[in-house]
Amino acid sequence: MAGGGGQRRCRRLEAEAARAVLGAADTLLFDCDGVLWRGEAAVSGAAAALGRLAAAGKRLCYVTNNSSRTRAAYTEKLRRLGFPPAELRNIFGSAYCAARYLRQALPPGAAAYVLGSPALAAELEAVGIPHLGPGPAALPGPAPADWAQAPLDPAVRAVLVGFDEHFSYAKLCQALRYLLRGGTDCLLVGTNRDHWLPLEGGAAIPGTGCLVKAVETAAQREAFIVGKPNRYMFDCVVSEFNIDPARTIMVGDRLDTDILMGNSCGLTTLLTLTGVTALDEVRGHQDSACPARQSLVPDYYVDSIADLLPALGE
Amino acid sequence: MAGGGGQRRCRRLEAEAARAVLGAADTLLFDCDGVLWRGEAAVSGAAAALGRLAAAGKRLCYVTNNSSRTRAAYTEKLRRLGFPPAELRNIFGSAYCAARYLRQALPPGAAAYVLGSPALAAELEAVGIPHLGPGPAALPGPAPADWAQAPLDPAVRAVLVGFDEHFSYAKLCQALRYLLRGGTDCLLVGTNRDHWLPLEGGAAIPGTGCLVKAVETAAQREAFIVGKPNRYMFDCVVSEFNIDPARTIMVGDRLDTDILMGNSCGLTTLLTLTGVTALDEVRGHQDSACPARQSLVPDYYVDSIADLLPALGE
Repeated sequence: MAGGGGQRRCRRLEAEAARAVLGAADTLLFDCDGVLWRGEAAVSGAAAALGRLAAAGKRLCYVTNNSSRTRAAYTEKLRRLGFPPAELRNIFGSAYCAARYLRQALPPGAAAYVLGSPALAAELEAVGIPHLGPGPAALPGPAPADWAQAPLDPAVRAVLVGFDEHFSYAKLCQALRYLLRGGTDCLLVGTNRDHWLPLEGGAAIPGTGCLVKAVETAAQREAFIVGKPNRYMFDCVVSEFNIDPARTIMVGDRLDTDILMGNSCGLTTLLTLTGVTALDEVRGHQDSACPARQSLVPDYYVDSIADLLPALGE
Repeated sequence: MAGGGGQRRCRRLEAEAARAVLGAADTLLFDCDGVLWRGEAAVSGAAAALGRLAAAGKRLCYVTNNSSRTRAAYTEKLRRLGFPPAELRNIFGSAYCAARYLRQALPPGAAAYVLGSPALAAELEAVGIPHLGPGPAALPGPAPADWAQAPLDPAVRAVLVGFDEHFSYAKLCQALRYLLRGGTDCLLVGTNRDHWLPLEGGAAIPGTGCLVKAVETAAQREAFIVGKPNRYMFDCVVSEFNIDPARTIMVGDRLDTDILMGNSCGLTTLLTLTGVTALDEVRGHQDSACPARQSLVPDYYVDSIADLLPALGE
């Protein structure tokens, strides 16, 4: 027993254990990319597994750090790939959760300067928060003195950073100006800290975490992060459905987001190997005496969530 | 005596002490912006003070983190603002030092992918390093899969990050791809970590440090930093002039770059209050028992380097 605490051990979830663990749960939270699908292709057998979970009366929720899709786009993608029908209120994307956070935190009428996608803008609109920023932006002149003169919207009281393919020095500059003008009265919120977005074939593109870091470095402030491993996304699920952590399973493919959030919120955690994590990484953390690494060890793993099918009967 | 080490005390440099300190030095290293000038206006009396130092036979060198100007542009600006004539070899800008570093570190024929200004590109050209990157860049298609397909130059063996007003997600993406392709065979170099560039009137724009952080976060690697407070810039001065640290004064307006580098290289350090630092900050560090804060305390301060004039006689 290292450090007086119990060592977490990760076991394969199969047969009797799978039936017992699933039987004791009433809610499952699913990360999406790498768990249910990869790009536009559903993980083989995943839709059937979720269909049986739904038929068995389990509540299925979807918790994703991806800020480039609205909740409506997720319900549509689930439908298109053959997953059981999902209602909007079961979808907890970081774009929606960021809008929900700002709705609580901002005074009425306050606006957000957004480094992010049209989907992030749409989720802000849906909760009635005025915003500006999405899309390309150019520097307002040739010299630094010009850049510091571009007009600022007096209503802006938050800078929100999500995935933004149009991220640029011009937008970073404007974000800093809002943060310097408002001081602590201007919120700084990031959708997530994922440093990569993995693509098929082992390629990767920079994730939102890179953009959040750039803004944090400019402003010399830490952002409030809505997405996993922060517990805010889980708190959104609790406030919507009043779920019991002890009867909830978090299913994900990333240790430092999905599994860490699940473990720190007291959920049962299940790693699937269809995404970015290999079992060797889990073993490395498990054999470490470091508490931070121990917190990344899931309770269980499966090769694919399709492996749950036998435990779910007909 | 805290922690067994001597507490650094910062004293005003005037009268007899000024004559003694200047008399014992044969080289002075000057930061430029906030010390010699602010924007296009010379600090009043600064040119006269440097003129007398040069006449007294002191070697004057210029060490600046600004990566947006070539050495030639600095000699021209010094001339234009009435400072004593400077040779190229006395100018140590972070663009030039980065080129010098890559010239040593890269194999012959290797190229650099540059996030930076035309000046940074010009300094690379001057030392014979092929480069690509400066100027605006667009994403090569609408979807992430397209972004990971843009052509890569097979000769690139370094990513160099300087101040880049055209910094964009597209360039961050390309930088990450070079770093992932090359692994540790692809160097990651930053000109400096300044998080702000202060403008006249208290405004500020994001500095190179924000861009370096974005690339470091994407690549999950730490960059080698050429500029202050790293000692590489000082090492360039030593290898050019074989100076004696004990007979060298570092003059600057920033504690966390100029003064920290000077203190850690064993130089006498002199803070001037014409730039970004107020004396209260120095006192805060001085009264702290924290070694990291003590290392930011200069040996001396002046309101302006023009205050050195009386000690320099006629």
